[in-house]
Amino acid sequence: MNLGRFLSVVSGLVLVILAARLDVFADEGMYPISEIHKLNLKSLGFELSADELYHPNGVSLIDAIVNVGGCTGSFVSAEGLVITNHHCVFGALSNASSAEHDYVTHGFLAATRADELRATGMTIRITESYRDVSSEILSDVTESMLPAERTKAIQKRMREVTEEAEKAHPGKQALVAEMFAGKTYVLFLYAQIRDVRLVYVPQRAIGEFGGEDDNWVWPRHTGDFSFVRAYVAPDGSPAEYSKDNVPYKPRRYLKVNPNGVDENDFVFILGYPGRTFRHQPSGFIRYDEQVRLKTIADFYEWQIRFLEQLGKDDREIALKFDSRIKSLSNVMKNYRGKLKGLKQLHLVQRKLEEEKALTEFIEGSAERKRTYGSVLKTLNAVYDEMIQQADRELLLDQFVSTPTLLSRAAMLYRAALERAKPEDERPAAYKDKNYDRFKQNAIRSLQQYYEPADKGLLRELLRRAALLPESARIKELESLTRSDQAIEDFLQKSYGSTVLTSEDRIKELLDASPDGLESLRDPFLNLAVKLEPVYKALADARERRSGILSREYPLYVDVKEQFQKAKFIPDANGTLRLTFGRIKGYSPADAVYYSPISTLAGVIQKSSGEPPFYNTPEKLLKLAREGMYGRYAHKRLNSVPVGILYNTDTTGGNSGSPVMNARGELVGVNFDRAYEATINDYAWSDSYSRSIAVDIRYVLWVTKYVGGVDYLLKEMGVE
Amino acid sequence: MNLGRFLSVVSGLVLVILAARLDVFADEGMYPISEIHKLNLKSLGFELSADELYHPNGVSLIDAIVNVGGCTGSFVSAEGLVITNHHCVFGALSNASSAEHDYVTHGFLAATRADELRATGMTIRITESYRDVSSEILSDVTESMLPAERTKAIQKRMREVTEEAEKAHPGKQALVAEMFAGKTYVLFLYAQIRDVRLVYVPQRAIGEFGGEDDNWVWPRHTGDFSFVRAYVAPDGSPAEYSKDNVPYKPRRYLKVNPNGVDENDFVFILGYPGRTFRHQPSGFIRYDEQVRLKTIADFYEWQIRFLEQLGKDDREIALKFDSRIKSLSNVMKNYRGKLKGLKQLHLVQRKLEEEKALTEFIEGSAERKRTYGSVLKTLNAVYDEMIQQADRELLLDQFVSTPTLLSRAAMLYRAALERAKPEDERPAAYKDKNYDRFKQNAIRSLQQYYEPADKGLLRELLRRAALLPESARIKELESLTRSDQAIEDFLQKSYGSTVLTSEDRIKELLDASPDGLESLRDPFLNLAVKLEPVYKALADARERRSGILSREYPLYVDVKEQFQKAKFIPDANGTLRLTFGRIKGYSPADAVYYSPISTLAGVIQKSSGEPPFYNTPEKLLKLAREGMYGRYAHKRLNSVPVGILYNTDTTGGNSGSPVMNARGELVGVNFDRAYEATINDYAWSDSYSRSIAVDIRYVLWVTKYVGGVDYLLKEMGVE
Repeated sequence: MNLGRFLSVVSGLVLVILAARLDVFADEGMYPISEIHKLNLKSLGFELSADELYHPNGVSLIDAIVNVGGCTGSFVSAEGLVITNHHCVFGALSNASSAEHDYVTHGFLAATRADELRATGMTIRITESYRDVSSEILSDVTESMLPAERTKAIQKRMREVTEEAEKAHPGKQALVAEMFAGKTYVLFLYAQIRDVRLVYVPQRAIGEFGGEDDNWVWPRHTGDFSFVRAYVAPDGSPAEYSKDNVPYKPRRYLKVNPNGVDENDFVFILGYPGRTFRHQPSGFIRYDEQVRLKTIADFYEWQIRFLEQLGKDDREIALKFDSRIKSLSNVMKNYRGKLKGLKQLHLVQRKLEEEKALTEFIEGSAERKRTYGSVLKTLNAVYDEMIQQADRELLLDQFVSTPTLLSRAAMLYRAALERAKPEDERPAAYKDKNYDRFKQNAIRSLQQYYEPADKGLLRELLRRAALLPESARIKELESLTRSDQAIEDFLQKSYGSTVLTSEDRIKELLDASPDGLESLRDPFLNLAVKLEPVYKALADARERRSGILSREYPLYVDVKEQFQKAKFIPDANGTLRLTFGRIKGYSPADAVYYSPISTLAGVIQKSSGEPPFYNTPEKLLKLAREGMYGRYAHKRLNSVPVGILYNTDTTGGNSGSPVMNARGELVGVNFDRAYEATINDYAWSDSYSRSIAVDIRYVLWVTKYVGGVDYLLKEMGVE
Repeated sequence: MNLGRFLSVVSGLVLVILAARLDVFADEGMYPISEIHKLNLKSLGFELSADELYHPNGVSLIDAIVNVGGCTGSFVSAEGLVITNHHCVFGALSNASSAEHDYVTHGFLAATRADELRATGMTIRITESYRDVSSEILSDVTESMLPAERTKAIQKRMREVTEEAEKAHPGKQALVAEMFAGKTYVLFLYAQIRDVRLVYVPQRAIGEFGGEDDNWVWPRHTGDFSFVRAYVAPDGSPAEYSKDNVPYKPRRYLKVNPNGVDENDFVFILGYPGRTFRHQPSGFIRYDEQVRLKTIADFYEWQIRFLEQLGKDDREIALKFDSRIKSLSNVMKNYRGKLKGLKQLHLVQRKLEEEKALTEFIEGSAERKRTYGSVLKTLNAVYDEMIQQADRELLLDQFVSTPTLLSRAAMLYRAALERAKPEDERPAAYKDKNYDRFKQNAIRSLQQYYEPADKGLLRELLRRAALLPESARIKELESLTRSDQAIEDFLQKSYGSTVLTSEDRIKELLDASPDGLESLRDPFLNLAVKLEPVYKALADARERRSGILSREYPLYVDVKEQFQKAKFIPDANGTLRLTFGRIKGYSPADAVYYSPISTLAGVIQKSSGEPPFYNTPEKLLKLAREGMYGRYAHKRLNSVPVGILYNTDTTGGNSGSPVMNARGELVGVNFDRAYEATINDYAWSDSYSRSIAVDIRYVLWVTKYVGGVDYLLKEMGVE
């Protein structure tokens, strides 16, 4: 069923779609590893047994899968070589760059192993085991608790269970994941590698080919891959970066298949998808559609225009904001795609119809009515409240994340307040044993400071605060925003006298007490102090809402499962998941069809010479034009495949995930979704849910012919 | 051969493409009606004989084809009903609109024949006969003539032959068309209808669905059709509008086939394509690519932004420029498409290769060398000169076409100068018998005047004049543009004191003498007078170049035909042409395929509610969602076809052309080309040359279900 006709049905005949909807959701699936042994793998297309895929007590394919930063990667050699996306090492590349070495633009190649570059800020995690800990996490929860108390009780048990696990397994990282809020919790244990090094990263014009224009839109022609290497201490234990470290020997690494895949071939993915929202009620979708996505996309669009304007006539300033504009654009385009999809799918309307039917089901039995009678109303009331408060709350979130100096002040004051609490009441990050790491991260992630930009961003937020309706007004900001002149006066005075422009000063102040910070009389710290009760109230409100949701959500899931006679797969939550499908094109719009393999011919077509994203290296263009394909050509297409498209179920966090054939051999590296598939986070459909990988043949072709990195092909056993 | 791979070959392996290029041109063809009897129609796919298509002495299909404004149309009933495009009646619709009746937005429907609205400015022409008049036209040309004399001699004979023909055939319009410059001339005789009335025009949201966003890009979902009716005097003779006139009885009208066509079906088109440039040397292409297209597209883009800015906060002002922005955008997008295509095809490079081979051929024989030895050099030298002069000349063209008041002044002064000449030395438009019509046209086409816009446009042109390099400087403007202040002073003074803002005044001044105009001391007339020698020199230069081209071009065509062992079809020149092909999709880019039939499902997809172009009438959406397709559904696609795509050879002027099936039945109304096919004017290729029609099923469906105009379906014999 093509998207066009599907939509016409949806929007016109609401009654008909109730049946259709079940189809739409039929093939989705980000299966937790606990589900793998329940699947009939052979019939799905796998040529691997469940044990080969995941063996709780032995070596299996999942030992080759790593979580690297917010991304996924996979081991591809016995020497700890990891393949992931180009965009996943962007930060490390940028950190490693200097005036002489612009690795961001030109890429990086280690001539020998000794030349591999420290990838600052990157760590690797490998899933080792999991255990259902729902009853332990919920053990303190009582019926009579107030919502906020409930949230606190759950969070406290999560901290405790984590700590116990880490104590029992020294050197491992423990994390409790919420699979269904208030219902199912799983403890994951991870091996950690803290010394990661850059091996080969192609030039930006390859790795980020097409930039924001091509982002989120098939056909893609981006060589979004990179190679890094995991290092451990000589004894095999995890260690911070050291010259003495040695390459990590993974328990398992993936075989690279240089022949790739073809249309209709079966593929599967193991990776760490971040967040999906498939099992949410109508109110949640309404909040996202009407408020959150729209507000953020609009504000990011304003920011992008503002920052571009600042850098318009000054290349150096433009470069400062290059990476920030890139990530703002990435989110904005994703959100715009989601909004388009939500609108076209009429998802709120569909959820409402679903809830109407569910309500009838509930009211059909006195027993069910007693247990579930108020669930939907209570859940949706929380979202109604969030919609009501959104203008104010989303603006408050921006104040402490967008302008650099105020964000620094808020971060410092928050840290001081938490550190002033007794050790066992502090959130994990502020505990003594973790605080050094927190400080390092805080310092590393300090946003670049440029006064005209920072002032402009804060000015805009203050102006927006001034425009809030009476009922949403932030009274702590009222005197400051009572007129444009008042705002200008504040900005003038504050940027002229603050000490927070100095990163060295920030380092010191990370150990200051609340009183110490207050006594500085810094205008931004003063503002942070003044706003603290506002943020405290916001946190309390969110804790209360979270408590209500965690109380009601299990009931909602229960009754929905009864009604639909189904067992739900939990939404993505950053834990290891399996998804599978086929190499398959789709129709993004009436009379348009996307075929599922893009080629070098498209790279040539798009290479207009426009920097930084379409100025394909001459060497690549020459090789492509001369048909120097080596063994990497697709016979029918008579070109080297560059991108592949498939109907698996992925989301953010799946970046860098290995795409494997039925035998578990590497055939691609996942990096993007089609524009129509940005809606995927809310609703999966075979008609539009398509993910995108860089084809292994392009990875190998670029590595060999453009990069000339023969040693990597040898190391991976390809040549 | 798909575009992607085709391009990779072109750009990489210039040697190989010499062979490939012949293929590329193999299927093109806008055949003059004189060629129809030479074609093997049956083998091409026609189910009509040559005589049925065109019978010089009898009734044939071409009697149903009309030239209407700059467009094509066709008779579809015995009562003079004509179908053409919505955009072809836009001007008439706008003229007929008033404060109470906004026909532009809401469309127009005549409830009865008496309600049909006068379509001011629209006339209809029907081709009646043709005759080769090359020897007559060239009879005064001598070897020894200077180039400018040669141009004058040809133009004089064209005027004389036209006049003789009109004298011999009273009531007919005669036009001599240049088929190959300096070589082949054909006299066409046309029947003329001067009373044209609007019958049914759908609302703008249907007829212009998608606006500039969708323009030039498949898939289209635009109901770009309209019905008008031809009226004549009761005795059947052409007459100006009068209540007493009666519907024209065409000699032939097209049968409408409500079943439409399907993928791969044969179709053909008869119409009046404007201009193509297939048989031009490298210099011509270089001029267009490097200078003309780029300069105009950039200037139009500036104008669009400027006019949009003016109307940004004022809906009324925005409406003033709506139609102007529409036509600027249309040209700009077309030119940008052409530039992209010229670049991707490397057409200049290909022409140079072709000319290299041609030169070798010429030099291969002493005889050929004597006759053709200098042709290419001489032709290309003309274009080199044009490239050199382009900055100055293209700017001069803008001065007398873009700002309203200066354009009016130039028009008035030119008319006065021409009218001061003896009758037989005047160009046709200024002769006594034609001058009333000239005046009417001049008054009707007076651009809307709005001082801030006009001032801004003239300011920009004056600033650009100030920036011309020393060698290109327009010295008559030097004092006026010596500084920004001088420009402002001039604008201030001129707009404050001119009389040319009054349309009544313009009407009077159309009969003024040159002296009379000069004595007014109007600042814009003064400037027009001052610039007259500049424009005279420009006209002389163009006459001289035209003389050289008309002398050399026949030699160029001769030797190319010898070399390629081919007989060329003349480039489009506004005369009646036949082209044929099949309903066929294409690949606009790597991994993307456009299928050739768009449907109502796409209308729903695109209908975001955004006015004026995506706010599809609720009635239409409801019918579409309910699947109320009547007899007009496409079985496989299960929707009403809206647009069709086919590989015939069309260009501007083909708007409104009937698309017919093998039996000559109407199955669509041509209105656009695909973006990749904008390059079509320079080079045709089966891989990208695609034209677009509104499917007859959508025309009939909208007419019946949305318009409720049952009487039209009856009149066409469809129901």
